[in-house]
Amino acid sequence: MRLLVIGGVAAGLSAAARARRIDPSLEIAVLEKGAAISYGACGLPYYLEGRVPRAEQLIVYTPEYFRKERNIAVRTGARVVSISHPRREVTIEGGERMHYDRLIIATGARPRNVDFESAALPHVFTLHTLDDAERLKAYLRDKRPKQAVVIGAGYIGLEMADALRRNGLAVTVIERGGHVLGRADAELTKAVRERLERFRVELQLNTHISDVTRYDLAILATGLQPNVEIAAEAGVEVGRTGAIRVDDRMETNLPGVFAAGDCAEALHLVTGRPAYIPLGTTANKMGRVAGANASGRRERFGGVVGTAILNVFGLGVAFSGLSVDQARREGFSPVAARITARSRPGYFDGKPLTVELVADAGTRRLLGGSVWGEDGAEGRINVIATALHNRMRVEDLEQLDLAYAPPFATVWDSVLVAAQQLSKMV
Amino acid sequence: MRLLVIGGVAAGLSAAARARRIDPSLEIAVLEKGAAISYGACGLPYYLEGRVPRAEQLIVYTPEYFRKERNIAVRTGARVVSISHPRREVTIEGGERMHYDRLIIATGARPRNVDFESAALPHVFTLHTLDDAERLKAYLRDKRPKQAVVIGAGYIGLEMADALRRNGLAVTVIERGGHVLGRADAELTKAVRERLERFRVELQLNTHISDVTRYDLAILATGLQPNVEIAAEAGVEVGRTGAIRVDDRMETNLPGVFAAGDCAEALHLVTGRPAYIPLGTTANKMGRVAGANASGRRERFGGVVGTAILNVFGLGVAFSGLSVDQARREGFSPVAARITARSRPGYFDGKPLTVELVADAGTRRLLGGSVWGEDGAEGRINVIATALHNRMRVEDLEQLDLAYAPPFATVWDSVLVAAQQLSKMV
Repeated sequence: MRLLVIGGVAAGLSAAARARRIDPSLEIAVLEKGAAISYGACGLPYYLEGRVPRAEQLIVYTPEYFRKERNIAVRTGARVVSISHPRREVTIEGGERMHYDRLIIATGARPRNVDFESAALPHVFTLHTLDDAERLKAYLRDKRPKQAVVIGAGYIGLEMADALRRNGLAVTVIERGGHVLGRADAELTKAVRERLERFRVELQLNTHISDVTRYDLAILATGLQPNVEIAAEAGVEVGRTGAIRVDDRMETNLPGVFAAGDCAEALHLVTGRPAYIPLGTTANKMGRVAGANASGRRERFGGVVGTAILNVFGLGVAFSGLSVDQARREGFSPVAARITARSRPGYFDGKPLTVELVADAGTRRLLGGSVWGEDGAEGRINVIATALHNRMRVEDLEQLDLAYAPPFATVWDSVLVAAQQLSKMV
Repeated sequence: MRLLVIGGVAAGLSAAARARRIDPSLEIAVLEKGAAISYGACGLPYYLEGRVPRAEQLIVYTPEYFRKERNIAVRTGARVVSISHPRREVTIEGGERMHYDRLIIATGARPRNVDFESAALPHVFTLHTLDDAERLKAYLRDKRPKQAVVIGAGYIGLEMADALRRNGLAVTVIERGGHVLGRADAELTKAVRERLERFRVELQLNTHISDVTRYDLAILATGLQPNVEIAAEAGVEVGRTGAIRVDDRMETNLPGVFAAGDCAEALHLVTGRPAYIPLGTTANKMGRVAGANASGRRERFGGVVGTAILNVFGLGVAFSGLSVDQARREGFSPVAARITARSRPGYFDGKPLTVELVADAGTRRLLGGSVWGEDGAEGRINVIATALHNRMRVEDLEQLDLAYAPPFATVWDSVLVAAQQLSKMV
């Protein structure tokens, strides 16, 4: 009985490791197209920034580790070019074929840079894989670029603007849309713009750029698209989001074929519908569930609430659930309250923390929240995320028994203050 | 129609302010026995430490503010000595009587120092009110004590040990029981002991002290007892915890008489039974609900899960819900998993964070958790608290969509790691 896993980063390796733990007798092989496996892709901006001095520090496990310690065969540089499910085999670039009994597709995603004409120029980079980061790092070292443009004001774009600026480059961020981070939120955009400008990073919204020849360095950060092609060609169903459709066991429409990670959809617990939100945390969770089910257990993946966080020059910006705009598009009647309070008392160096909560006017159910500030954004968004998982209503949220002592918080935590405010409105 | 509130600190003033917002025509009077109202009692250790330079900085509102801005009559130095509910009046020390239509009892608590013979000595202090803090501050300034003993290793005791040590005193903490913080948890006691010893504070457990004459300063910090006497004499029912029994509207057995704050019980959502956990956060929430119901609204207080946090020389220690020991006593079949992970990646200065989760073996329901570490305890305990409010089960907890980016957390947050561990055990 052979479990074959395509992809050796977050989802693929979580799946393989979990399957091994459940079934010591299973034959498990992982095929990874890149040169490295098991690296923390979210750490790549900090490798470029210099905070992580060596790329190896981002690598959690090596192929040798998996071979020796877990009895999992890992091959790098092995790109799967097709899947034949009737024959239960995959074909690797070069022609080699490999049989499977169970298959886990964890092919990940790639930067979405359709319609960008200059993508092939030597000073234009994306940042998605460890290879990307190594090439960019070498370019920074060898060419010493001075003027950088970052195209896209999403997570990667803003993190890269920060990393490059801290390397001394002049940085301009260019975004086609009217907001940062893909959220139609003028106040958030203003807060991020102020932070960027304080560090002399220019932000141009509603701007389309096609010619990047006047910059020494261009970073394409316009989002991700799932790697679904070989799966789709093999008859694996792709959902409306463009990612692979899975059930709550991470199984695709083909029995015995599972998908997990950045190539797959996940159930969004607020909307109740599949969503495509490629993130490392979700990939790991999905991978574990896929690995369990592919090795004979029955487990389900509960779904996501769309939690994310990033740091922009010391400003923590976090979301969970739906924005007002998203909620409206999903058919809710959103009402929102936004407050700014201190993360802790002034005498414990508390910083302003902005918390927005969104609820449905009809049901009083919490739909989402966003938080930003120099201190404490992560703790507050996690409370909101946990509340969303549990479909909490506003009046219950405002009574949460959260921790208080002056070194950590204010007596009315900012989440509670926002909930009180919202409670008057729904 | 007059609403009378006995007590002008957290619960009393929250109640009065809320009632005013709901009913602008209500006559509202607050009687406070002390000299100051509306102070952040949890900040008192930091006033003594010196981080808060002036006591006034802990005072949120003055009587004048309430009078002018809220049309609430606040009298300080007005100690209520009896309540006559048949006549709907209270008697103030000195003999003055005051009528009420609705009454809110927010008489708070006092240090529990029964059976301590030396309590009346001039170098023996408690720390509960602003007056206490001012007297102790003056003593530190005028007498320059060198050797301090803190009796009781609960929250106040440990915070005071920290504050006094930072003032240069030699500090010994003496605890009658075998553990710190009232939790039968050897590992927690060990972690706190190590932290105290690193700062050269001595901890003596299982020790009874009666003679404190060999110290220059003694702090009694052996817990709180609710101020229920005048209420009980008036026929207000006291629960098994010794605090005033209230329903979920904060009403006592006497119609129109409410109680809130450190004198009252609160429903514990994990046990489903009334508990006595006097804390400022709960007092404020109870006060709001009492104020709403006393002014004609119908609101309910959901209850508490027993969340608390404190800082001991830079170590954050937090709890929510039940410990293994408490769970067993409540009739559950507790199973616990404890892990130590990093608060964030090492390259973002992550610190070890210990997380224990307790669940019921039969139902897999989360019953409680404890967290300690130099970084991130507050965020994790709040996730646990929110999970407890929602009666989450372990398998749902481990799938929480928590925020991840390297500056804030690890890809598997320590709460999720602990939940995974626990999931294998229940």
